[in-house]
Amino acid sequence: MERIESSANARIKEWAKLLQKKERDRTGRFLAEGDHLIQEAMKEGLVEVLISDHAEDYEFEPKILVPEHTVRKLSSSVSGAHSVAVCRQKQSVPEKTDRILILDGVQDPGNLGTLIRTAVSFRYDAVVCSMETVDLYNDKVIRSTQGSLFHIPVLRADLAEYTASLQKDGVCVIATTLEDAVPLKELPRPDRFAVILGNEGNGVGRHLQDAADVRVRIEMSGFESLNVAVAGGILMYELGAKAE
Amino acid sequence: MERIESSANARIKEWAKLLQKKERDRTGRFLAEGDHLIQEAMKEGLVEVLISDHAEDYEFEPKILVPEHTVRKLSSSVSGAHSVAVCRQKQSVPEKTDRILILDGVQDPGNLGTLIRTAVSFRYDAVVCSMETVDLYNDKVIRSTQGSLFHIPVLRADLAEYTASLQKDGVCVIATTLEDAVPLKELPRPDRFAVILGNEGNGVGRHLQDAADVRVRIEMSGFESLNVAVAGGILMYELGAKAE
Repeated sequence: MERIESSANARIKEWAKLLQKKERDRTGRFLAEGDHLIQEAMKEGLVEVLISDHAEDYEFEPKILVPEHTVRKLSSSVSGAHSVAVCRQKQSVPEKTDRILILDGVQDPGNLGTLIRTAVSFRYDAVVCSMETVDLYNDKVIRSTQGSLFHIPVLRADLAEYTASLQKDGVCVIATTLEDAVPLKELPRPDRFAVILGNEGNGVGRHLQDAADVRVRIEMSGFESLNVAVAGGILMYELGAKAE
Repeated sequence: MERIESSANARIKEWAKLLQKKERDRTGRFLAEGDHLIQEAMKEGLVEVLISDHAEDYEFEPKILVPEHTVRKLSSSVSGAHSVAVCRQKQSVPEKTDRILILDGVQDPGNLGTLIRTAVSFRYDAVVCSMETVDLYNDKVIRSTQGSLFHIPVLRADLAEYTASLQKDGVCVIATTLEDAVPLKELPRPDRFAVILGNEGNGVGRHLQDAADVRVRIEMSGFESLNVAVAGGILMYELGAKAE
């Protein structure tokens, strides 16, 4: 096991850059912090280097022992993690497209992470994000997924093209909206579908609403406002989890 | 309209203490920041004093004009609000107990706020929190409710006593749990019910699970983990919004 004592070390400085989106995009890597996330990333074989201030943690090699302040330099302020892993981003393609969650510009990292976590819990096949959706490897997103991020294909795509290709393939595209929509209880349950959720402020883009096969709304009385992750949970549950 | 130029002003210092839970509990007041929340609080007649760095904002009196740095002193760091309102906490009692959301130790302010917002959207009659639940007037909770907090009775209670009193009154008490529970799809739909959600880490307390009339679980395959606000949204929707 290697030791690095100085935070000024060239490799530490390189890895610290992964706290920035630009560097994550450039290298196809990201940082996972904390035991739970690191273990989830290991299950998927995504960990390239483990960096820890606890010599006894993990069997994994290569492991680098560093001082506590170096771990802090490599982790987000909020986390009190003792270990950080340099991981490669998973570029997996969905095996099936029977149950797809599509996100059109979700901006809040906690919402994105929670939606991914819910999609995994209900065995959806993939999560497809518009280019404007918040960065998947933002540390808040990763934490909110509770590690489930590593267990489902999550893609970025031009949603107009992507939904058109799904429709050609016989997948029913469902857009969520507040007006001019079928109440969820009355929505037919297609065998294969993709459900589109929108930006927290503006909802699903007009062009995607128009191109969808059907528009659905969650019946609400009262305040008429649901958090997008809650709306997504209700829709994913109602439209059906996939059988084993 | 009064002007206060100095952040050292005695009243400003008193109001700034409302950023602390202890002072909110002592005085029965809290701070609402930003136009949307302030307008929602005004609808309910909760605003006592409006403090703003924009003379033209609001017809409300008493209004106090202050420098921008004073508004910042009275608001949470994240918010860029121009106005802050000193509000009184609403101690309302539910008119009905047909649809009750009960929270046993929810700790994340965003989760609590989102659950309250969902309960309002589905016209639940009240949200009842255990004593260990995160402070309702935490600024993150208030922001996450999007102002809906002001439109529903939210109480703190000893949940063992409270649920027993509901049961005596003929309300079906439903506890959520992962094991030894009825799948949600198979749960009978009682006319009057209270649904209990638990702490993010530990779920619903054992004693409340045992005392409940029925235990329910949301059918999941895969990762077996839902955020508590998502689980609450699914349960509140499935068990039924109240008709107008």
